[in-house]
Amino acid sequence: MIIVMRPYVSEDAVAEVIDLLADAGLDAEVVTDQDRPVVLTGAMESATTASLVGLDSVERVIRVEGPARLVSRAYSSKSSVIDASGVAIGGGTFIVIAGPCAVESKEQMLNTARSVAASGARMLRGDAFKPRTSPYAFQGLGEHALKIMADARDETGLPFTAEVLDPRHVELVASYADLLRIGTRNMSNYALLKEVGRQPKPVLLKRGRTATIEEWLSAAEYVYSEGNSNVVLVERGIRSFEHSTRNTLDLSAVPLAKGLSHLPVMVDPSHAAGRADLVPALSRAALAVGADGLLIDVHPDPKAAKVDGDQALLPAQFADLMRDLKAIAPVVGLAL
Amino acid sequence: MIIVMRPYVSEDAVAEVIDLLADAGLDAEVVTDQDRPVVLTGAMESATTASLVGLDSVERVIRVEGPARLVSRAYSSKSSVIDASGVAIGGGTFIVIAGPCAVESKEQMLNTARSVAASGARMLRGDAFKPRTSPYAFQGLGEHALKIMADARDETGLPFTAEVLDPRHVELVASYADLLRIGTRNMSNYALLKEVGRQPKPVLLKRGRTATIEEWLSAAEYVYSEGNSNVVLVERGIRSFEHSTRNTLDLSAVPLAKGLSHLPVMVDPSHAAGRADLVPALSRAALAVGADGLLIDVHPDPKAAKVDGDQALLPAQFADLMRDLKAIAPVVGLAL
Amino acid sequence: MIIVMRPYVSEDAVAEVIDLLADAGLDAEVVTDQDRPVVLTGAMESATTASLVGLDSVERVIRVEGPARLVSRAYSSKSSVIDASGVAIGGGTFIVIAGPCAVESKEQMLNTARSVAASGARMLRGDAFKPRTSPYAFQGLGEHALKIMADARDETGLPFTAEVLDPRHVELVASYADLLRIGTRNMSNYALLKEVGRQPKPVLLKRGRTATIEEWLSAAEYVYSEGNSNVVLVERGIRSFEHSTRNTLDLSAVPLAKGLSHLPVMVDPSHAAGRADLVPALSRAALAVGADGLLIDVHPDPKAAKVDGDQALLPAQFADLMRDLKAIAPVVGLAL
Amino acid sequence: MIIVMRPYVSEDAVAEVIDLLADAGLDAEVVTDQDRPVVLTGAMESATTASLVGLDSVERVIRVEGPARLVSRAYSSKSSVIDASGVAIGGGTFIVIAGPCAVESKEQMLNTARSVAASGARMLRGDAFKPRTSPYAFQGLGEHALKIMADARDETGLPFTAEVLDPRHVELVASYADLLRIGTRNMSNYALLKEVGRQPKPVLLKRGRTATIEEWLSAAEYVYSEGNSNVVLVERGIRSFEHSTRNTLDLSAVPLAKGLSHLPVMVDPSHAAGRADLVPALSRAALAVGADGLLIDVHPDPKAAKVDGDQALLPAQFADLMRDLKAIAPVVGLAL
Repeated sequence: MIIVMRPYVSEDAVAEVIDLLADAGLDAEVVTDQDRPVVLTGAMESATTASLVGLDSVERVIRVEGPARLVSRAYSSKSSVIDASGVAIGGGTFIVIAGPCAVESKEQMLNTARSVAASGARMLRGDAFKPRTSPYAFQGLGEHALKIMADARDETGLPFTAEVLDPRHVELVASYADLLRIGTRNMSNYALLKEVGRQPKPVLLKRGRTATIEEWLSAAEYVYSEGNSNVVLVERGIRSFEHSTRNTLDLSAVPLAKGLSHLPVMVDPSHAAGRADLVPALSRAALAVGADGLLIDVHPDPKAAKVDGDQALLPAQFADLMRDLKAIAPVVGLAL
Repeated sequence: MIIVMRPYVSEDAVAEVIDLLADAGLDAEVVTDQDRPVVLTGAMESATTASLVGLDSVERVIRVEGPARLVSRAYSSKSSVIDASGVAIGGGTFIVIAGPCAVESKEQMLNTARSVAASGARMLRGDAFKPRTSPYAFQGLGEHALKIMADARDETGLPFTAEVLDPRHVELVASYADLLRIGTRNMSNYALLKEVGRQPKPVLLKRGRTATIEEWLSAAEYVYSEGNSNVVLVERGIRSFEHSTRNTLDLSAVPLAKGLSHLPVMVDPSHAAGRADLVPALSRAALAVGADGLLIDVHPDPKAAKVDGDQALLPAQFADLMRDLKAIAPVVGLAL
Repeated sequence: MIIVMRPYVSEDAVAEVIDLLADAGLDAEVVTDQDRPVVLTGAMESATTASLVGLDSVERVIRVEGPARLVSRAYSSKSSVIDASGVAIGGGTFIVIAGPCAVESKEQMLNTARSVAASGARMLRGDAFKPRTSPYAFQGLGEHALKIMADARDETGLPFTAEVLDPRHVELVASYADLLRIGTRNMSNYALLKEVGRQPKPVLLKRGRTATIEEWLSAAEYVYSEGNSNVVLVERGIRSFEHSTRNTLDLSAVPLAKGLSHLPVMVDPSHAAGRADLVPALSRAALAVGADGLLIDVHPDPKAAKVDGDQALLPAQFADLMRDLKAIAPVVGLAL
Repeated sequence: MIIVMRPYVSEDAVAEVIDLLADAGLDAEVVTDQDRPVVLTGAMESATTASLVGLDSVERVIRVEGPARLVSRAYSSKSSVIDASGVAIGGGTFIVIAGPCAVESKEQMLNTARSVAASGARMLRGDAFKPRTSPYAFQGLGEHALKIMADARDETGLPFTAEVLDPRHVELVASYADLLRIGTRNMSNYALLKEVGRQPKPVLLKRGRTATIEEWLSAAEYVYSEGNSNVVLVERGIRSFEHSTRNTLDLSAVPLAKGLSHLPVMVDPSHAAGRADLVPALSRAALAVGADGLLIDVHPDPKAAKVDGDQALLPAQFADLMRDLKAIAPVVGLAL
């Protein structure tokens, strides 16, 4: 059960609720969601519910099943719209975030940024810290890359997202990026989830490549319950026996997650497929299935890319894709 | 390698090719594809290729990798269009096949058939023989159901597809149905694949729920190499760890299979998801990803359905879906 | 619910039970299991149960959940022992079946048979009909191979198992083989399962590479409910994302299946791993986990094998493995 | 390629090697493995290899494929034996680590510790920090639990292992525990892997539930290449479609990983199966397949356990299991 209190109620009012629950034999946990305390507790008898609803300090009492509570539709039937430095994710607009997988040089990044901006991308991507299977592979340029991204933002006016890998880097990455990102390998890295939950920048949360939808929503709950309600889910493919693609893009997860949760859901077809030739078709499908946006890898010279070049579109291919998406979007009721 | 001979060449001409291969140490297999012999053999030296190309009876010699040869793009760069009693599958038209999972009664079937015809379905579905996990579950009405389907065809003018489970039933089902169907459980039932390959009715071949794309194309090759080139592939979900849906619809498989093979590829979102609420979104996505059509379960009273009622749309929901699809189709360059 | 009647009761007695169930609104299905009728029906009220138990013709009434009824532990708490031409499978003996994947020649088969017999194998394997992913791969020698197997049996005194792929071949294969085998691709080929259920030879039923344990037991129920109670389950690996081995051997399935069912469970480590180097370790593990026996591929010249040579042990390696197994068997309470 | 230098060579000697590689156009990375520098680089021409081998400071030059270099068999054909406060893991002894999943109270832990010590466990387990799918589930007692574990060690004389979740906790956990543990959710948490690699306590590295064997060895390489060569691999089940068990224990991974790497490999059947009834059979199988030891959950009152009670053995069941294992171990050539 979730007890949503009125905004700015006193600590005494919260204590009154907790005492009332304790009398009914229930433990309670208090989190803060946008200026109001929210009390989480277990299943209760109807008499207890009635007492709570009778309190002036309580706005509503909600029954929720499962571990994901604050991110569930039961908690908020209204779909969330997340603000990332002025770009609204969710709420009827289809957002495309584009750029290289990793920042490699200022020239590579600025060229890419200008071209994707011209084609209609609303945000930039480009990572500073890369999680790599091998310790000997290129691990990213670190803070230097974040500075290049800030330059690209200055030049194009587009905000940017960057991945954070280590709880000790959250402050650094958040000091530059407009939208933090948790990668698939770290979806169950709870220390990291809690840390991004304790700061205010919005967070893209990629689905673990082996995570069920319930586990993915529970990971979002980790961020949300620490006080950061600005979470965007990203489907990016799951691991299956089929190895023609690097992962199996699970587009069913988009309507499923949007049915279970009020959070926006984006799709990353580049990392799902791991091959550029499939990206346009999967992008169109993601739009048609009801996603709130896309993350697309674009690189001016994919063959020379230090990371994941096989999956990057050329700027001209990206421009073609944006044209297709703009034609479909109004038919499915989205602005692009 | 594939040696495509000219139409109607003599048996002596074929024998000459086989002798030439034998001299080069190569085994050969001869199949017939639309009035012309096709000789399949292994990798050969360039001198042998040159000799073959020099023969009047030989039209062309094609290099193909992997076990799927006649269904591959290398064999025919032109996409196949399959005719099912006047309905063309592939070639730029998007075809929707709709109806109940199983035929339960004449009234159920005729009602459904009239309503899906009115909404724009181009073919009917409704099975006579059902493969069921439990031997004690409803197994279908058999030939009686095929007669009901024929009545539904007479009334609506729409041809129909029906599943065949047993090589001994191929002749019976083919005597009624316009389009045979091999289900996911039988994709590797080679006795059945060969039997449908030896008769002329076109065949829908569903992907095994655990089959790689290469294995799926190899199954199509079993049908094709027996002489029946009228094969349509159907993606219907693969088995993964995610159990929110009955199967994980693998929409990447559509552009992948269409890139590797010249056969049309349809999608069955009803059996993939196993739940009706996801069918409209997945249908839109299948259209946007480039599929040649859909199979959709529709039932006038899903709660009373003997088989798979959870996944069936109501006729009115199907009508809504068709409206959405008709709006998207021209944007992606397909007629509907 | 299962109503087990006394052996040799009259048809009238069965009709009386069916009438009683009909009065209670229940459908019934009658099968015969070892000289006695068994009536299968749904959940019933306690008054109905009491009436049935009161009949002289009824031996016992059993509550069973799920689709697998006759093969369940609820139906028979005693573990079944299956007789294959004098070799008892189950019941405390550990049986090793060995031989080449496919019969290629009389010499190949007889050499292998003599060597595995000398090392302690209790049955031979060697297939006549091979299900192959490609239609152009070696498909087996057919009846000629069955005759060679019969010769190998004559020479060694060991009975043999052979795979059957087509319902129209069941009679032929059963006229030679002591133990039929349904392969992983055909576990859900219900036409074939019913056909082997209608003849008396015992049946090895391999788990589908994508089948849950419940689906596997339901497939066994198809055979059993047609009247053939001589079914042995074989775990042979399932499909997962891990491709270092051809399949992932699921040894947990052995105690699970033996807990849910009274049927014996064997293991095929050769087809699971697809590589000979892992076969000895996995064989020891299968014995330790509680399996009733093994199927092992052995070939006198694996590099020259027409099918699956990578997974075959040399006769000397097989002899070493048998020595290891004989040392472990008494420690885990099995005779070998 | 790996260039292993002699112990205690000068920095100049290392610089000479790096210069020589630079002249050949090769990047180099230097790590320290047990008092000697090791230089990692790419494929080189034979002339370069010859020059390197000619240097006094170079002990040997090794060709290795794939990302896992220092943990590979190519680097060390001798199997590693890892010392954890006097307990040797690997090298022919079979080690059982036992205890509750989480430390809940001093009484619970000491009772369990005494009983598993009496049955023959060589180390204790019991976690202070628990990664939980839900943020509202019990997360462990933190440092208080580590103090209890230290008490249990004092009383029984058995060293203990504890999981570490956060790079900022490594120093704390290492100040108490004898053997750190990286859980399945953190196998690709590279920030954490590097941190445990920079301190000297040995590390148990669990396989990610979705990790291939190559990815698992690459994760071990992250630890090893930071200077900590005391790594033990733990197979604990992978995610598959089969949900009868929580994960599918992949026992093939044991001989595979031991073939590819010189590190010891243990098995955790408790977390793999997620159900206690399968633990004894799977433990016997793990011993028979060649593992170097087991981690087993034991709890004095599993129904009251705060975490994973379904999978815990009772102390008496654990004692029975140890008796079985002691009978099998000598047969497979291991001391227990």
